[in-house]
Amino acid sequence: MRTGLSQARMVEIEQNILSKNDEYALHNRQRLQDAGILALNLVSSPGSGKTTLLTHTIEALGNEMPVSVIEGDQQTANDADRIRATGAAALQVNTGKGCHLDGHMVGHAIDSLAPTDDSVLFIENVGNLVCPAAFDLGEHHKVVILSVTEGEDKPLKYPDMFHAADLMLLNKIDLLPYLDFDVEACKTNARRVNPDIQILPVSATSGEGMPAWFDWIRAARQFVRAGH
Amino acid sequence: MRTGLSQARMVEIEQNILSKNDEYALHNRQRLQDAGILALNLVSSPGSGKTTLLTHTIEALGNEMPVSVIEGDQQTANDADRIRATGAAALQVNTGKGCHLDGHMVGHAIDSLAPTDDSVLFIENVGNLVCPAAFDLGEHHKVVILSVTEGEDKPLKYPDMFHAADLMLLNKIDLLPYLDFDVEACKTNARRVNPDIQILPVSATSGEGMPAWFDWIRAARQFVRAGH
Repeated sequence: MRTGLSQARMVEIEQNILSKNDEYALHNRQRLQDAGILALNLVSSPGSGKTTLLTHTIEALGNEMPVSVIEGDQQTANDADRIRATGAAALQVNTGKGCHLDGHMVGHAIDSLAPTDDSVLFIENVGNLVCPAAFDLGEHHKVVILSVTEGEDKPLKYPDMFHAADLMLLNKIDLLPYLDFDVEACKTNARRVNPDIQILPVSATSGEGMPAWFDWIRAARQFVRAGH
Repeated sequence: MRTGLSQARMVEIEQNILSKNDEYALHNRQRLQDAGILALNLVSSPGSGKTTLLTHTIEALGNEMPVSVIEGDQQTANDADRIRATGAAALQVNTGKGCHLDGHMVGHAIDSLAPTDDSVLFIENVGNLVCPAAFDLGEHHKVVILSVTEGEDKPLKYPDMFHAADLMLLNKIDLLPYLDFDVEACKTNARRVNPDIQILPVSATSGEGMPAWFDWIRAARQFVRAGH
């Protein structure tokens, strides 16, 4: 589209934004690493069940490790309220017109939350399978949540996100009996765009598969605390 | 975020992009109106069931009115293939890194598709409840599809989109028996951000509620053909 600026200038502006974001993300990453804090950036479509997954995760692991949460949404503080009901510290970031969290927002949120050393920080991004893929927040891993109600083709249609994630949680598997969803095809699609992606089928509501997710978090935390 | 450009300059660039888009959209709208073509912009999260809804809609109405489809996705031509299997003309637009269709892309797509006078043009936007809200394509109505698996809070968390839409299709109601979803709360939430929004509960797979959606299309088409 013409904007009064040349195409080359628009690309330059876009690159500047991403490069500034990367500076903030690098700073966040260093700071989290120094404090032995595992940071996970949870990304997905709206309504994939991220917040329910988080509340059940905190209930299961909260006594074992300190947990805090940064909640990203265009509007409302509903999700932070739901997290705080579990006893974990949570900070809501409202992005307004914005479609993703960025490194700068997350840096300020870490200042406010002040997570303790050796804790786990979950960052629940704005529900959006496109834009958050491009913005590093300084996290150790992006975890993409795909619910089985969304269809097995989503990794192919939104490849950047599935390429950027280290783990895919295939959520809401309690609904599989009522859907025409091919789990193996979905896994194949995810591995086509990202051969290294780990995949765990879970149901946050029934609890099925959740212990494997908890073990994944424990292992990732050990890795960070060991200074990697 | 700092980009080497002042905040004021960034806002100006953003406004330029939206204002250029509005010029393209205005041109599309005039052209569609002149030809008596009803254009509907279908917006939703990924996996809400837009394409399945469209294929069933085309099967029901295809003999009654000419239908064509513009399909927006980051990657793949899967959806256009699914539409063409119904016999309707379809054009896939891949947005790559882009998170929404814009007026310029849709103008070119209309050139290629060349929809017949007095037809219906469905534009299936990229699955994204944030960014497509800001980009007018020249459509007569935005139709937001929310599936009941996504939770009744979505209109409050993504208010721009529900504010921009004239109709909300509450899809996948065949799954209600297996979910903890409050239909009335969802309707209340949608009307809080948009008191004028029309709401139709449907299941594209079971067919429940679909006749009311077909009637809505018929009425909207009559309105356009009458020169409104």
